Amino acid sequence: MPDAAPQPAFVLVRPQMGENIGAAARAMWNFGLDRMRVVAPRDGWPSASAVAMASGAGWLLDEAMLVGDLPAAVGDCHYVYATTARGRELTKPIFTPEEAMRDAARRVAEGQKTAILFGPERSGLENDDVVRANAIITVPVNPRFPSLNLAQCVLLTAYEWRRAADALPGAHVHMHNTQWADQVELEALATHYDDTMMQAGFFYPEHKAAIMRQTLRNFWSRMPLTQADTRLLHGILRQMVRWKDRGSGGA
Amino acid sequence: MPDAAPQPAFVLVRPQMGENIGAAARAMWNFGLDRMRVVAPRDGWPSASAVAMASGAGWLLDEAMLVGDLPAAVGDCHYVYATTARGRELTKPIFTPEEAMRDAARRVAEGQKTAILFGPERSGLENDDVVRANAIITVPVNPRFPSLNLAQCVLLTAYEWRRAADALPGAHVHMHNTQWADQVELEALATHYDDTMMQAGFFYPEHKAAIMRQTLRNFWSRMPLTQADTRLLHGILRQMVRWKDRGSGGA
Repeated sequence: MPDAAPQPAFVLVRPQMGENIGAAARAMWNFGLDRMRVVAPRDGWPSASAVAMASGAGWLLDEAMLVGDLPAAVGDCHYVYATTARGRELTKPIFTPEEAMRDAARRVAEGQKTAILFGPERSGLENDDVVRANAIITVPVNPRFPSLNLAQCVLLTAYEWRRAADALPGAHVHMHNTQWADQVELEALATHYDDTMMQAGFFYPEHKAAIMRQTLRNFWSRMPLTQADTRLLHGILRQMVRWKDRGSGGA
Repeated sequence: MPDAAPQPAFVLVRPQMGENIGAAARAMWNFGLDRMRVVAPRDGWPSASAVAMASGAGWLLDEAMLVGDLPAAVGDCHYVYATTARGRELTKPIFTPEEAMRDAARRVAEGQKTAILFGPERSGLENDDVVRANAIITVPVNPRFPSLNLAQCVLLTAYEWRRAADALPGAHVHMHNTQWADQVELEALATHYDDTMMQAGFFYPEHKAAIMRQTLRNFWSRMPLTQADTRLLHGILRQMVRWKDRGSGGA
């Protein structure tokens, strides 16, 4: 079940509520992270409420490393990040989650072990914890409402890890079923509408007919049409003509 | 208290638990978003449990727009995104949250109104909701554990909005000449075609009618239609009906 690829450890430092530990496990596993370490959980370990909240991510808790203090949790790591809104008086690099996870992805790719520290729910990491980290991660929240909870902070960091690790080539728009219409198909569609609307007397009055036809032709070229779209649009027009041909008596 | 800068509306579609509505409000306000719209909340409105959960973001609920159905929620919007893990069988652009919020930031800077749809907790948006959106947002979660909850999905989208909006060069805001069709105009166009093609017997055979109607409705939302385009398309259909009504003898 675990992901074999190297990844950062997420270290929950003195977490309080089991529910929040479980929610943190879920948030990690949502983005494929499964190395949890837990430092001195307030309510003991294992935690039934953590397991209940974790549901499908409960196995992260079974395999989590439980330690008594922070140095023991990060002893094997080469580079440690501390998530905190404080610590700005410490001389230390301050990263956004995106910057930090890019940095971590690079380090992990080079064979380094990394860890991310998350503080207790109520108070966050203390400066005694933060000084043990190499860098700080601060989520750029609304300064008028900086109320991220533990699982949310884990979620955003895990999300950024996934983005950095996947190193996706950006800004691709994926569309299911996309067989784009080519120019021959587009022209056939435009001609079908032009001919039929001509017969239907749409391009009226006479002196505006040329510009109306141009507008309609331009319309088709401006639309991102698939082959299926052109079939739909041909079908609509054919059906309208059939309806007409059934005659006024049959309508 | 509200942020005066233009921003997308976040639309909760048929949300179930008040707690989740409150958590969504918090997640929005964490990243400075404050325009919530609520469509047909299961347990009524106002919601005491939503207010209790929202704490410092409770004022978003006081100012939220409450509406009875989705078209009413997005009537004034020019571009609508639907968050869903499904809908891949619909022909529609699929964005990551980052791509979508970059796109939205650009549109908002051009003066367009945008909205993001979030589905009910248990089931997510239905295809009948998704066809009313112009594009889909899918969070790239772990396929083995795709269990994001409503507030988490709102949080990640709000986070990406903040990143995209902050990254925009503020001086380069320029207005398009283009008068884009809004959702009310789009809905009127879709209804006109749906009604008329129904009368014309286009949706045939019977057992395919529902999917054909959905495909046609989805088509309109996918096209980049201006107000002038919608007038053209209404005109085409009206003219076909007039042609029919003149009868087979007069053609």
